[in-house]
Amino acid sequence: MRAVTIDEGRIEIRDHPDPEPGAGEVLVRVRAAGLNGGDMMQRRGLYPAPPGAPQDIPGLELAGEVAALGSGAARFAEGDRVMAVVAGGGQAELAVVHERLAMPVPDALGWPDAGGFSEVFTTAHDALFTQAGLGSGEHLLVHGAAGGVGTAAVQLGGAAGARVTATVRNDALRAGVAELGAAVIEPEGFEAHGPFDVILELVGAPNLAPNLGALATWGRIVVIGISAGAQAELNLGALMGVRGTVRGSTLRPRPLEEKAMAARAVERHVLPLMEGGAARVPIADTFPLDEAEAAYDRFAEGGKLGKVVLTVD
Amino acid sequence: MRAVTIDEGRIEIRDHPDPEPGAGEVLVRVRAAGLNGGDMMQRRGLYPAPPGAPQDIPGLELAGEVAALGSGAARFAEGDRVMAVVAGGGQAELAVVHERLAMPVPDALGWPDAGGFSEVFTTAHDALFTQAGLGSGEHLLVHGAAGGVGTAAVQLGGAAGARVTATVRNDALRAGVAELGAAVIEPEGFEAHGPFDVILELVGAPNLAPNLGALATWGRIVVIGISAGAQAELNLGALMGVRGTVRGSTLRPRPLEEKAMAARAVERHVLPLMEGGAARVPIADTFPLDEAEAAYDRFAEGGKLGKVVLTVD
Repeated sequence: MRAVTIDEGRIEIRDHPDPEPGAGEVLVRVRAAGLNGGDMMQRRGLYPAPPGAPQDIPGLELAGEVAALGSGAARFAEGDRVMAVVAGGGQAELAVVHERLAMPVPDALGWPDAGGFSEVFTTAHDALFTQAGLGSGEHLLVHGAAGGVGTAAVQLGGAAGARVTATVRNDALRAGVAELGAAVIEPEGFEAHGPFDVILELVGAPNLAPNLGALATWGRIVVIGISAGAQAELNLGALMGVRGTVRGSTLRPRPLEEKAMAARAVERHVLPLMEGGAARVPIADTFPLDEAEAAYDRFAEGGKLGKVVLTVD
Repeated sequence: MRAVTIDEGRIEIRDHPDPEPGAGEVLVRVRAAGLNGGDMMQRRGLYPAPPGAPQDIPGLELAGEVAALGSGAARFAEGDRVMAVVAGGGQAELAVVHERLAMPVPDALGWPDAGGFSEVFTTAHDALFTQAGLGSGEHLLVHGAAGGVGTAAVQLGGAAGARVTATVRNDALRAGVAELGAAVIEPEGFEAHGPFDVILELVGAPNLAPNLGALATWGRIVVIGISAGAQAELNLGALMGVRGTVRGSTLRPRPLEEKAMAARAVERHVLPLMEGGAARVPIADTFPLDEAEAAYDRFAEGGKLGKVVLTVD
């Protein structure tokens, strides 16, 4: 099979042996696979794939048809449309996925949508609800809301009855995020729009102190992206004063059972939104697998609303 | 009535008008009232009493007999032994307490024990269980474990089936904390004894970075004391890596209903431990009300195991 291959920072398409599904796994003929920040970090050598995942084939999410079943796999049949978060190896013609991590693709989602759905919606749903316990009537702030996770979070927050405010740095993307249901503001001076019950932090360390200053009593900050830096200052007295919480989270290193729990939560609480049209996967651009390097460059240059997705014929 | 009075940093005994119980309140003839870190901060002008509490009479906890009932108060009868967390004014011959904040004093507790129970056991129980969700089999670290909250937390953690490790700076107090059920270690190099599922932080900012380094996956740090400093450094990447949580908490500014919930939790889950002898209130020293200044000086000099309590004849 052919697959995107990272070799010392270069993105190439190379031939690899076809993967074989192990016990409880399905082999997927990939039709679309989204790009994520983790792929960019892996390209730079900063985010090695965990043990057991392909080390040189990136790709944290995929969608396609089940092509073969490993021993004991029983959730899906050959030909079923599935999508999943994977620990790596998604950007290839074939990939293996544990059946407990795979979700059925709703009819409402085409291949690019399905290929760009799993990582960002699972990340956003887990952060907002499982980690932060976002509730109806609360005020949610999403930092860096124009990207894949941000656009997912804005929609999920609104669907849950939260009031959603979003920071977007790029002027050109604000209208698109507003269409998804957020009150869009500039990053500078965002504190004036609080207090916020939940803050989804996708930017990093420089935001932590102003986040805390804008946090409501019993508020929760969930940090899932640190592109602007990791080393933050935290005033513990201020944190005590609002009985606040700062939580960090990431999906990739979690064990199978925790990822499967996250997939089940998305099946139950997010797929109905996609089927009913209450949420969608904003796609900034698609590229065929052969143009993976261009797709990576497009992702890295920023200024996009939603996902960059590779498609495979 | 006579009461401890703070006047520009001085601790004196002065006459004050007798307080009168309002709707839903009880008047308590105080028999014992513990000292807490908050009193020391209030003496230094750093921790003013919240609105509605006596501004110049310190005291965050008390025990005594119900002397009169305000209109509608129905939980207790005159003469009942009660104890409570109060927002201020506890170190006096008389004090008013909302009946929803008062707890019955178990027979097993004498007056000094009861007077030093409420603030520290409520703080420790709320932090360990309501905030951090400490569970059986988890590894708990209590920093600064020789004080009132620390000795309460060590006992509550052990009673809940957690494995308890405790840092104690003062050599002379280690055996006493070990008797309460903790593996006692020096503060320096505590990280080597982890990983810890829950860390109760009573010291402050300098501990935050090593705490994070010693935190187990899904671990929770609850900060309830910052005597060593408030401004901490937090590496968000490390926090994400362990899916960790840093929470700050304090009881005093909470509204009545939240304090009442905390009191009900202590009644249900802690008073049975006191009645059965599974936990006790370590008393470092008692002083009569007239010697309040000596009691404050004793508290401030440190090196004590458990509580300093004022007694009233």
